[in-house]
Amino acid sequence: MSGIILLVNGPNLNMLGVREPEKYGKTTLEEIVEKTAKRASESGFRLKAFQSNHEGSIIDFIQKEGMEADGMLLNAGAFTHTSVAVRDAILSVKLPFIELHLSNVFAREEFRHRSFLSDIAAGVICGFGETSYELAIRAMIDFLSKRG
Amino acid sequence: MSGIILLVNGPNLNMLGVREPEKYGKTTLEEIVEKTAKRASESGFRLKAFQSNHEGSIIDFIQKEGMEADGMLLNAGAFTHTSVAVRDAILSVKLPFIELHLSNVFAREEFRHRSFLSDIAAGVICGFGETSYELAIRAMIDFLSKRG
Amino acid sequence: MSGIILLVNGPNLNMLGVREPEKYGKTTLEEIVEKTAKRASESGFRLKAFQSNHEGSIIDFIQKEGMEADGMLLNAGAFTHTSVAVRDAILSVKLPFIELHLSNVFAREEFRHRSFLSDIAAGVICGFGETSYELAIRAMIDFLSKRG
Amino acid sequence: MSGIILLVNGPNLNMLGVREPEKYGKTTLEEIVEKTAKRASESGFRLKAFQSNHEGSIIDFIQKEGMEADGMLLNAGAFTHTSVAVRDAILSVKLPFIELHLSNVFAREEFRHRSFLSDIAAGVICGFGETSYELAIRAMIDFLSKRG
Amino acid sequence: MSGIILLVNGPNLNMLGVREPEKYGKTTLEEIVEKTAKRASESGFRLKAFQSNHEGSIIDFIQKEGMEADGMLLNAGAFTHTSVAVRDAILSVKLPFIELHLSNVFAREEFRHRSFLSDIAAGVICGFGETSYELAIRAMIDFLSKRG
Amino acid sequence: MSGIILLVNGPNLNMLGVREPEKYGKTTLEEIVEKTAKRASESGFRLKAFQSNHEGSIIDFIQKEGMEADGMLLNAGAFTHTSVAVRDAILSVKLPFIELHLSNVFAREEFRHRSFLSDIAAGVICGFGETSYELAIRAMIDFLSKRG
Amino acid sequence: MSGIILLVNGPNLNMLGVREPEKYGKTTLEEIVEKTAKRASESGFRLKAFQSNHEGSIIDFIQKEGMEADGMLLNAGAFTHTSVAVRDAILSVKLPFIELHLSNVFAREEFRHRSFLSDIAAGVICGFGETSYELAIRAMIDFLSKRG
Amino acid sequence: MSGIILLVNGPNLNMLGVREPEKYGKTTLEEIVEKTAKRASESGFRLKAFQSNHEGSIIDFIQKEGMEADGMLLNAGAFTHTSVAVRDAILSVKLPFIELHLSNVFAREEFRHRSFLSDIAAGVICGFGETSYELAIRAMIDFLSKRG
Amino acid sequence: MSGIILLVNGPNLNMLGVREPEKYGKTTLEEIVEKTAKRASESGFRLKAFQSNHEGSIIDFIQKEGMEADGMLLNAGAFTHTSVAVRDAILSVKLPFIELHLSNVFAREEFRHRSFLSDIAAGVICGFGETSYELAIRAMIDFLSKRG
Amino acid sequence: MSGIILLVNGPNLNMLGVREPEKYGKTTLEEIVEKTAKRASESGFRLKAFQSNHEGSIIDFIQKEGMEADGMLLNAGAFTHTSVAVRDAILSVKLPFIELHLSNVFAREEFRHRSFLSDIAAGVICGFGETSYELAIRAMIDFLSKRG
Amino acid sequence: MSGIILLVNGPNLNMLGVREPEKYGKTTLEEIVEKTAKRASESGFRLKAFQSNHEGSIIDFIQKEGMEADGMLLNAGAFTHTSVAVRDAILSVKLPFIELHLSNVFAREEFRHRSFLSDIAAGVICGFGETSYELAIRAMIDFLSKRG
Amino acid sequence: MSGIILLVNGPNLNMLGVREPEKYGKTTLEEIVEKTAKRASESGFRLKAFQSNHEGSIIDFIQKEGMEADGMLLNAGAFTHTSVAVRDAILSVKLPFIELHLSNVFAREEFRHRSFLSDIAAGVICGFGETSYELAIRAMIDFLSKRG
Repeated sequence: MSGIILLVNGPNLNMLGVREPEKYGKTTLEEIVEKTAKRASESGFRLKAFQSNHEGSIIDFIQKEGMEADGMLLNAGAFTHTSVAVRDAILSVKLPFIELHLSNVFAREEFRHRSFLSDIAAGVICGFGETSYELAIRAMIDFLSKRG
Repeated sequence: MSGIILLVNGPNLNMLGVREPEKYGKTTLEEIVEKTAKRASESGFRLKAFQSNHEGSIIDFIQKEGMEADGMLLNAGAFTHTSVAVRDAILSVKLPFIELHLSNVFAREEFRHRSFLSDIAAGVICGFGETSYELAIRAMIDFLSKRG
Repeated sequence: MSGIILLVNGPNLNMLGVREPEKYGKTTLEEIVEKTAKRASESGFRLKAFQSNHEGSIIDFIQKEGMEADGMLLNAGAFTHTSVAVRDAILSVKLPFIELHLSNVFAREEFRHRSFLSDIAAGVICGFGETSYELAIRAMIDFLSKRG
Repeated sequence: MSGIILLVNGPNLNMLGVREPEKYGKTTLEEIVEKTAKRASESGFRLKAFQSNHEGSIIDFIQKEGMEADGMLLNAGAFTHTSVAVRDAILSVKLPFIELHLSNVFAREEFRHRSFLSDIAAGVICGFGETSYELAIRAMIDFLSKRG
Repeated sequence: MSGIILLVNGPNLNMLGVREPEKYGKTTLEEIVEKTAKRASESGFRLKAFQSNHEGSIIDFIQKEGMEADGMLLNAGAFTHTSVAVRDAILSVKLPFIELHLSNVFAREEFRHRSFLSDIAAGVICGFGETSYELAIRAMIDFLSKRG
Repeated sequence: MSGIILLVNGPNLNMLGVREPEKYGKTTLEEIVEKTAKRASESGFRLKAFQSNHEGSIIDFIQKEGMEADGMLLNAGAFTHTSVAVRDAILSVKLPFIELHLSNVFAREEFRHRSFLSDIAAGVICGFGETSYELAIRAMIDFLSKRG
Repeated sequence: MSGIILLVNGPNLNMLGVREPEKYGKTTLEEIVEKTAKRASESGFRLKAFQSNHEGSIIDFIQKEGMEADGMLLNAGAFTHTSVAVRDAILSVKLPFIELHLSNVFAREEFRHRSFLSDIAAGVICGFGETSYELAIRAMIDFLSKRG
Repeated sequence: MSGIILLVNGPNLNMLGVREPEKYGKTTLEEIVEKTAKRASESGFRLKAFQSNHEGSIIDFIQKEGMEADGMLLNAGAFTHTSVAVRDAILSVKLPFIELHLSNVFAREEFRHRSFLSDIAAGVICGFGETSYELAIRAMIDFLSKRG
Repeated sequence: MSGIILLVNGPNLNMLGVREPEKYGKTTLEEIVEKTAKRASESGFRLKAFQSNHEGSIIDFIQKEGMEADGMLLNAGAFTHTSVAVRDAILSVKLPFIELHLSNVFAREEFRHRSFLSDIAAGVICGFGETSYELAIRAMIDFLSKRG
Repeated sequence: MSGIILLVNGPNLNMLGVREPEKYGKTTLEEIVEKTAKRASESGFRLKAFQSNHEGSIIDFIQKEGMEADGMLLNAGAFTHTSVAVRDAILSVKLPFIELHLSNVFAREEFRHRSFLSDIAAGVICGFGETSYELAIRAMIDFLSKRG
Repeated sequence: MSGIILLVNGPNLNMLGVREPEKYGKTTLEEIVEKTAKRASESGFRLKAFQSNHEGSIIDFIQKEGMEADGMLLNAGAFTHTSVAVRDAILSVKLPFIELHLSNVFAREEFRHRSFLSDIAAGVICGFGETSYELAIRAMIDFLSKRG
Repeated sequence: MSGIILLVNGPNLNMLGVREPEKYGKTTLEEIVEKTAKRASESGFRLKAFQSNHEGSIIDFIQKEGMEADGMLLNAGAFTHTSVAVRDAILSVKLPFIELHLSNVFAREEFRHRSFLSDIAAGVICGFGETSYELAIRAMIDFLSKRG
């Protein structure tokens, strides 16, 4: 198989490994991206990663890259709970995606229980720290390989 | 009459005519802007158009251009339902505007039924595809001509 | 093109131009009907207008005329927010229609924000006074001409 | 003083004294109207009474008589809780009115606690059976005499 | 046994068999009334049928005929969900009745799940098309025969 | 007839006529009490009046005087919306009472639409300024005379 | 015609006729099953009846018998309002069914107004005591015969 | 590493691969259990699998096996949304677990969006069909190996 | 006095004293039952105790033993918040009962604040650990002795 | 053991035994206090009782006596549902207390189901009439003796 | 400048510095009043301080002193969330005031997020312990000096 | 003392003094920053100010500067009510901050009453115009000096 998988990280995920290592581990976002890219390439996929604290930049990226891509891993962070615009960007490029989170959002504040993305996602993975990414790339490769 | 009318388009509207033509038609945003500008100039108005996926850029534009403008056509897209900041930008420049949408938002997801803009708009037009723009520019010209 | 367009006005719209001219203008409903009919006929359509303060009479009219008509402009007034029966009448004759209002209902009481008609309408126009009718007849003609 | 006071009774109030006398007393609506008219005329007012089970007829009456009248006693019955159209009719003729009920609506079903009329009424009287009418005509005469 | 059973049909039910036969079948309301009357007469009851798109007319009918009748089959259509006045009319004549619907209202829009009639009905039948009427007349005859 | 009628006024009603005369009139609470007492005595009743800004004192009064009294006029002011304890005091002495207000509470803040008293009151009168008291004493005398 | 119709009764329905006869009649569940089976067999159907107080056993039964059956009469009792699992069992075997109740659930506690079954049922019958079963078997036979 | 991992499947999951293969695939629950057990044993863990349509049996199993186990994969099916008792069983044995679902519950009925398990789970995985199990066993092994 | 008192314990209460002793104490359910039985027998009552994790088994028990019993102590555990069926079982045998809990449910998760049992219980006791049982048996004996 | 236990009764509880004996029994509050004091002294505790219809007086009492006391029995009556201030008074003196009620508050009006005290109480007892006090003093003595 | 500023403290604030010093500091209310008075007098204002646990006494104070005063600092404590009567007292004397709290009410229980005072206050300050008072007196002096 | 205090202003605050001076005063944001910086420096702190209409830029700033800073004054404007991402940025750098607003948000639209920041702020100040900044810098200096 071959193709492109996007890995999009939303606001504050650039802080991974830098701040609050006791909470989120010492692995940086760069290391996670690298690992995920490696696993993707083992299955013949190329990973294009992007992180931004700007909702608009994430939309720009999805619009630009989403057309050529086969799937997306999306940790939209806080935008998960507030951004209809990111939802619309995904809908406009009709890109299958997996919603993922480091932490278990259901064990946190009430307002994190609502997602503007879940109902249009292929699936949801949350609560496993950096392993969430590993599970997500596996799930996406599996998803794409089944779809042929 | 003379004056300036702003035409502001929010996130994902740059995809018009490019993606999902079966749903939104083949007309691009550029073509819509052109048509609307033409109709405006027939009545002696100049149209200044702007599109952005960035909430902040839309606010910047409204702050900068809103002071000199006479009215605004605003298709805020997803920001309609989530942005108090765009509302505040309009309030700060006291610009009369028309809220417009391509699709009938009331026939879509529940969260699209709430608007942070409607109650301060001069009027609302939705559901007519690109014709929404044509109706809106007519309505604005009519509104401004009545106000003298 | 040719065909029939209904123009249905709900309760209290017969008071237009007669009462509260400072709020709704001096134009009477008769004059609005006349203008709208003229615009319709310019595009080859015949306008059949009806106003009633009786929900039942509006349903009777839609049932009787809706079968032969091509589209409807509907300012249901207060029935917009309370009448499931008018909704059902429209559904039973499968008539495409545009919901319109003189005032911006979203700037008024909370109970006017709910509509039993919006989600089955082709589109919604509100807030432009008598111009709402002009925009609506244009939108309907455009809608019907596109449908061919 | 002189002038006209309307007395409007909504659906099912024609059954007064005829059905459920053990609940609402044996006095008929005609007798209540007569008594109220008498009291009105003692203060120089003429009472015009109307009852209908048809929302539209009540609106017609208010539109037609409301322009010449000085005030209205309104027992809208069930329409109190469901009719925005009656509210709009009153607003269109700008007629001061008193909302009244035979029974104490707050001691009944939850849906009778919401009124589409109360917030625009001069005052509300409920729970006193036919005496509610007597209190209401007194209150209206008092209201009109103070307004001069 | 002998007595009178009312069969009251609300708004848009006159369209049965005429419009949307693919959805509601080809049987007209007249045919349903005829069948139901036949079944009633087999058990010694006379059926008085009434249909109206006017809430007020339905109330008038219930007030007038309800006093002499033994029971009522009521398909109030859209008024089921919006009319407190029809509820009050039934309460005023203390007539046992069965609420019935052609379609399964619980499989439709949320606002059709609320009924102003159900809690005061003897029972509810919905979802069986014209068979709903046949079941309802049986249930009513059974109800009346048990009551003796 | 003879007997005792209580007139209880809640918090801030001692300010009547002293503050905000443009809103509530120049009549003081003393004058209102006097007038109401006079009207009561004309029908053979003795009026016992009490005002307090202290919820506890109102409960003390109702407990002490409520046992001997025949009825109560209660303008509980703000306690209407917050005091379950006053409700319980009335329930404990089983005293018929009329809830009254100077202003139309339904035209004011949302939290004034809920009353802990209405559903156990004989009736409710609001919106008529000092005339509310006059209507209430009439209604109470009427209520007591009917009860014999 | 021939085929199998299931009759499933949920918790506490085994108490029928044994407890509270003044409320639910003296007929036992066995007698109801017998009558219903008789009526089914008159139309060529075999009835398989099952009652349990155990949600799991009802699911087991539906899974096991639902595959071979043509339809089901389901009085899920209290599980109507709480069991998503019974809903899922029905969905998994795709069995058309009629929801039925002895009592009028809409005249009882608020929590009985919500059903996890209604929206996927062919129809709903409630409030007719044991006659509910007779109506339901008729409705099911009618339903199956129409479907061919 | 060594230890025991429970795999608990709730109501209707025994139907996997048997019913609705077009929706959930042809793989049976037995095959999924087998695969998952294999993957567990590769990492030195023993898998104990259990399925039941009975809430009580699932609680019994968790109480009995939960004390000796190291972790649990739990697809509680419909019980996810209704069972506080399963939640309490897990809390009583303090067993770390992963909540998993075949389908994306957030794309289904509203009542499936509430989970009585999510906030006490280590993480949540849903929407990937049988792959959900594969991801879950990986996540659990990862979780346990990190905890050491 | 003589008679039978049931002691019913719901899901997970068999874990008492076995798991989480630091939270619920070291006393086992058997010991609690023994103590409670002793106290009952001192007042001439026989205690029949039952525990199950199966909702259906609890219903079976209440149906079978409830007819002969005089009262019931019920710690329904998690079923308190989810089981309408247990409520119905109690209603069907008309057995006076006391709802009791080891922990203070009002200091725990929001969903534990709703009880399907409280409003039909004689009384409620919660928060006192095993002492809750001692208080409950006393209260029940007192209740039964007063009733004679 | 030795120490002080407060017994605080809120509004209208001074009416016990005096009013509505058919509902609450003939025992007066004085007699209840006496009994409770006796039971307390048998275990070496001194009871200090207080009743007031004044929220402020109850707060004063808790502030003054709460510092020296070991525990409190609190029947806050109506204040249970409305007083954050009593809650704060208890929090400020950190006094363990038991919330108790004569009647079963969960079988009464909806607004009595909310308590501002329950979540910070040691436990709750309600529905047993004067026996509620006996149970509460036992529970408190038990609570204090365990705490040592 | 000269004038009077009221400093009103609600229930339990007399416990400041006496109880829970680890939470609210060791400064007593007297010391806070003294400091605030000093700062006021430096700007030419006289401070009149009052504290009560009695809602009625606070209302009495506001009524009596509010007429002569220029502004008020109000820490209503728990009454903030429950007292409409205090709100009305302030409205009746039309006194500008600042709402203040020692703790950050938004970080506490949900019911502390609602204030009956905030929307009519000049401003709100919370979360700064005794410094809240210092900020408030500064803000009030600033407010009054600007108003002239 | 020494250290860094951030002053972050959200969308539309750059319009201060430029637009709507009658509402917000003539002082520009630059002047406010200058004053606040001066006051900070008097206490040995350096102020770093930032304003943006872009949510992403504010997050970038907080991430970059928040690590070195000691505290933050945050007027997030409209983002207060909609941005979970700004909340997360603050949480990630664990920076103590004060939420401030020019206007009294509680006296404005309902949606401005919800803040995504308040519960994690040290305190909240609103309603004092530019003085809000002066109060906030004082409060922050006080806060930091106490923390030592």
